[in-house]
Amino acid sequence: MIDKLIQKIQETGAPVVVGLDPMLKFVPDHIKKAAFEEKGETLEGAAEAVWLFNKAIVDKTYDLIPAVKPQIAMYEQFGIPGLVTFRRTVDYCRQKGLVVIGDAKRGDIGSTSAAYASAHLGKVKVGSSLCRAFDVDFVTVNPYLGSDGVQPFIDVCMEEQKGIFVLVKTSNPSSGEFQDRLVQTGTAAGAAGGITFSDRPLYEVVGEKVAEWSEQFMGKNGYSYVGAVVGATYPEQGMVLRKVMPKSFILVPGYGAQGAAGKDLIHFFDENRLGAIVNSSRGIIAAYQNEKYSKYGPAGFADASRQAVIDMITDIDQAFASVGR
Amino acid sequence: MIDKLIQKIQETGAPVVVGLDPMLKFVPDHIKKAAFEEKGETLEGAAEAVWLFNKAIVDKTYDLIPAVKPQIAMYEQFGIPGLVTFRRTVDYCRQKGLVVIGDAKRGDIGSTSAAYASAHLGKVKVGSSLCRAFDVDFVTVNPYLGSDGVQPFIDVCMEEQKGIFVLVKTSNPSSGEFQDRLVQTGTAAGAAGGITFSDRPLYEVVGEKVAEWSEQFMGKNGYSYVGAVVGATYPEQGMVLRKVMPKSFILVPGYGAQGAAGKDLIHFFDENRLGAIVNSSRGIIAAYQNEKYSKYGPAGFADASRQAVIDMITDIDQAFASVGR
Repeated sequence: MIDKLIQKIQETGAPVVVGLDPMLKFVPDHIKKAAFEEKGETLEGAAEAVWLFNKAIVDKTYDLIPAVKPQIAMYEQFGIPGLVTFRRTVDYCRQKGLVVIGDAKRGDIGSTSAAYASAHLGKVKVGSSLCRAFDVDFVTVNPYLGSDGVQPFIDVCMEEQKGIFVLVKTSNPSSGEFQDRLVQTGTAAGAAGGITFSDRPLYEVVGEKVAEWSEQFMGKNGYSYVGAVVGATYPEQGMVLRKVMPKSFILVPGYGAQGAAGKDLIHFFDENRLGAIVNSSRGIIAAYQNEKYSKYGPAGFADASRQAVIDMITDIDQAFASVGR
Repeated sequence: MIDKLIQKIQETGAPVVVGLDPMLKFVPDHIKKAAFEEKGETLEGAAEAVWLFNKAIVDKTYDLIPAVKPQIAMYEQFGIPGLVTFRRTVDYCRQKGLVVIGDAKRGDIGSTSAAYASAHLGKVKVGSSLCRAFDVDFVTVNPYLGSDGVQPFIDVCMEEQKGIFVLVKTSNPSSGEFQDRLVQTGTAAGAAGGITFSDRPLYEVVGEKVAEWSEQFMGKNGYSYVGAVVGATYPEQGMVLRKVMPKSFILVPGYGAQGAAGKDLIHFFDENRLGAIVNSSRGIIAAYQNEKYSKYGPAGFADASRQAVIDMITDIDQAFASVGR
């Protein structure tokens, strides 16, 4: 699946993923009205509105992009009907040939992570049948529980030829609270009244683990099925982590609405414009609410999304050009 | 809800939570057969088997215990039908008067955590209606993203009089890989060739943050709506963390099948046998598969679970007695 992702990035020339994170406030009123008239102001109505919204955006952008990243929280908030829309969105995007990254940030003790891995990437045995719960191509994973919480995902990836992106340095403002803590990484060389450490932040230590895990399952193009999440909002850390995890594709959130621009992204990539894929959610799916795209209006929301994708690809292209890549 | 939890612990004399983590291998054959005959060897059949299994165990144990903790991964693996059973289990347990801890270990950037908090603890606005997706009393939260990933959960807790348990030191074997790393916590006092740190592990730093967060929303009994998860498998760390987070209830997994016994638990509690609640999952729900309870057989699985709960309460009681509490 990492090879398919790379192939699609090369075909489209777009190291771009559209985040399908549909808050209801992003959905135009005419869509909500139609959905609520049919299903009521209920979880079912919300889920229908989200489905109509997603489908229109996917139909207008799928030929430009390699991948989408639905954020499952935005569906979970609408309960069972919301998760039906999540599955329907995933299946629809895969039918359209898109690589689907399920942004679930799951992670637990071993046996529980195994259940999550089955749920999102694999199969579950029921009697003598094998069934699939959800069926994405990649899932995001939280590393706080350590290797035995991550390994079950890698095991299922190897069975299914699918992949994961492990959180390393997240895009949010408080990500440094724990992730940037300097940790002991060398042998403790005692100094009077304390211990001497090398000054490496936790995210680097997690990045090193990702590099280790990535060796377990390599694709054909020099990149592993085990990737990492590093926020576009932290370009300097991105530059370091690109080197720490040379074989891991980096999923880069935080572009656009979260504040990062094309120039911040260069160091997440390798010399061949590979090694990273940049996510934009609100900046694409709610583009029509942005003054820049206001001419499209709510009726043209999906066309606004298409234009925002084109502009994002251009922005990244120009950033590459500015450094001669 | 923390006050209800404390009241129920005092009424039952049982600081015990039953983990409803129903892997299909725990479900007796006669239950699976009945469910598969009705719904097929499908996700629906699995979900039905799990529901019948859960209901029987809850019916035989609810009078002995204050709380249950369904692990959502075990339901998510059965997709939409599994999540229908999750919701049905949650609703049934709440009708029985049990406090329900949704073990979801969610956590993300702020706006996404807000969606998870709405999904599991709160309400979501659909047009002019307020709807509930899932409706547990407490949810477990992963802290890796820092304060802005946790705060949205606390905000919803304050609206709903509900609570969270934040992962601090998890029960699994590799939890130390990142959580035990010694981190810089004081001012860096430069020593030649390095930086001098105080030797505090990451879990303590996370524990201190939990202590800070807990101040935001206190119950009437000296404990906060913001609690912590600390594994029974790490009793020494439990003793430290009890002091670091004096106002946080500790949810303690890892008892029984994961290896910890009553004597390991004492230091998680305060002087009044409060401050902690101990989870057992497999040890209770799959008790009939344990040689100790084999006389019950698969037909008596729920009675075996009841006896296992009684034995667990006795084990903890004896541990308290041995230290004169």
